[in-house]
Amino acid sequence: MRATVMYGAGDVRVEDRPDPKPVHPTDAVVRTLAACVCGSDLWPYASMPATDTGRPMGHEFLGVVEETGAEVRGLGPGDLVVAPFTYSDNTCDYCAKGLHISCRHGGRYGLDGVDGGQGEAVRVPYADGTLVKLPVAADSALLPSLLALSDVMTTGHHGAVTARVGRGDTVLVVGDGAVGLCAVLAAARLGAERIVLAGRHEARTALGRDFGATDVVAERGEEGIARVRELTGGVDKVIEAVGTRAALDTALGAVLDGGTVSRLGVPQYEQGPIGPAVFMRNLTLTGGASPARAYIEELLPDVLDGTIAPGRVFDRTFPLDEAPAAYRAMADRRVLKALIRP
Amino acid sequence: MRATVMYGAGDVRVEDRPDPKPVHPTDAVVRTLAACVCGSDLWPYASMPATDTGRPMGHEFLGVVEETGAEVRGLGPGDLVVAPFTYSDNTCDYCAKGLHISCRHGGRYGLDGVDGGQGEAVRVPYADGTLVKLPVAADSALLPSLLALSDVMTTGHHGAVTARVGRGDTVLVVGDGAVGLCAVLAAARLGAERIVLAGRHEARTALGRDFGATDVVAERGEEGIARVRELTGGVDKVIEAVGTRAALDTALGAVLDGGTVSRLGVPQYEQGPIGPAVFMRNLTLTGGASPARAYIEELLPDVLDGTIAPGRVFDRTFPLDEAPAAYRAMADRRVLKALIRP
Repeated sequence: MRATVMYGAGDVRVEDRPDPKPVHPTDAVVRTLAACVCGSDLWPYASMPATDTGRPMGHEFLGVVEETGAEVRGLGPGDLVVAPFTYSDNTCDYCAKGLHISCRHGGRYGLDGVDGGQGEAVRVPYADGTLVKLPVAADSALLPSLLALSDVMTTGHHGAVTARVGRGDTVLVVGDGAVGLCAVLAAARLGAERIVLAGRHEARTALGRDFGATDVVAERGEEGIARVRELTGGVDKVIEAVGTRAALDTALGAVLDGGTVSRLGVPQYEQGPIGPAVFMRNLTLTGGASPARAYIEELLPDVLDGTIAPGRVFDRTFPLDEAPAAYRAMADRRVLKALIRP
Repeated sequence: MRATVMYGAGDVRVEDRPDPKPVHPTDAVVRTLAACVCGSDLWPYASMPATDTGRPMGHEFLGVVEETGAEVRGLGPGDLVVAPFTYSDNTCDYCAKGLHISCRHGGRYGLDGVDGGQGEAVRVPYADGTLVKLPVAADSALLPSLLALSDVMTTGHHGAVTARVGRGDTVLVVGDGAVGLCAVLAAARLGAERIVLAGRHEARTALGRDFGATDVVAERGEEGIARVRELTGGVDKVIEAVGTRAALDTALGAVLDGGTVSRLGVPQYEQGPIGPAVFMRNLTLTGGASPARAYIEELLPDVLDGTIAPGRVFDRTFPLDEAPAAYRAMADRRVLKALIRP
């Protein structure tokens, strides 16, 4: 099969790889219909040391089950399924708590002999626990929004859930990337009344307004904090969807005492400012990597009936062989989120 | 009047100060019946640079109202009252949310011309908003437990509340100081089923068992973490009642993915480990300086009817003139918490 492999910063290739087969009896092989590039793929694209072996890329995909191991019960060939961005058994203590990202048997695509999602097929471990069947046809116009459940929408939702967004809330979302925009959509879905989106890319903030942002703040740093405070008097809940220290500082500067900052962007720092100032202000720092699997069933009906259309974050489709161009376009911020069709 | 003043590390003096009078119409003057030394007083006792002017000490006291300003409505001379460890108007937006520690007009004792609590009398700003009347006589045996509501017990309770401790929970409390012991008491009061107390001072951990600790872990660092995991399989909720980086590291090491660490000890560090590891584990960092005023009415009935007796943390009483000895005894860990009687 053809699949996407990263060999180092800026070096993404599409090449021939062995066709996956079930290895364990709980595996399934999924023939990919749609995949995409994640904002988190751009961190190694910017900084990964060169290697000879390469790393299969992609952790967001949907497709059709092609073959199942002997112990797979709930799925069969021909089923259309979406994969959350990590696999999980859905039975361990963490999965039982809805924290599938910490599954005792879970793991990531592209590691440990498991294929990446940006290819023609994927061997999925713990298929029964991982994959969610989709009640639509393979040519459904909903596929982009269903694909968004694999990561970007369930991640935005995780930010809104962990920030405990509810009816009538005022929320700041820092970052106009696809996750930030989905966080806006998720906050609106949970009843937030006022949603301030901090971002300066006009096409993206326009989509953010469609998703429910009531205000857009283009200023950054101290100026941005001042603008949020001027607009809102300060906010109780912030979703930080970037991952840089600057974004965290904006979040901490704009939040009111007693408020919550939920992080969705993988931190690009090891140490952060959690000293006496944050302590005296009673700030809560929460969020993290989304347990996407836990949220798919909850969000699926809203995608199926059109209440939410997170697939709008995909603003360009690339054939699989052009995956390198998809990475380049996203890294240059010419494309918000690239959909890949094998 | 006589009052306690700190001039530098290890240099605490009791000296003559002007008798307080109401300055603003919302002030009251309280004649102190009982005060105490806080664990947080030991940080400046260890490190405060020498000064000529000194700083009035103490922020925990109860006493009898002696005189009120013209606008004080709810209090009059002769009322027995307890003071939360910061003053607050009880009317601003933060107070309305129960976050009195961030009161728009609030402040601390011993600063800005306001007396410290370790003296014969205190001018209390925003007396109506700050002071809580106590329905007992001035010679009540409950005074130590009522005094504990000014800080140590309401702080322990804040840890249990912000860690969202509830019925059946397993909780780790790091630190066997008076705040840690009160956190044990608060967690038990909120229904925690298993409470592991990390501490190695036997008299203190014995009191911790009386307060509800089911297990005591004397080991520190990696050994302590391993012991907590061995006993419990890991805990969802940790109350960190020390404030050092070592205590934070213990908390982060013992907590399960998706769990919460609530900090009660003022951090003795500016930066902390909130990078990708904490993010991937979905840990929540919460807690902070307690809004004591918000909790006094809630805890008062349990003190009055003897359900909780947080005053047991006071293991020695000093007359006011011996306040320097009280500091020394606490710094040497010979005394858990010193009560001071003017």
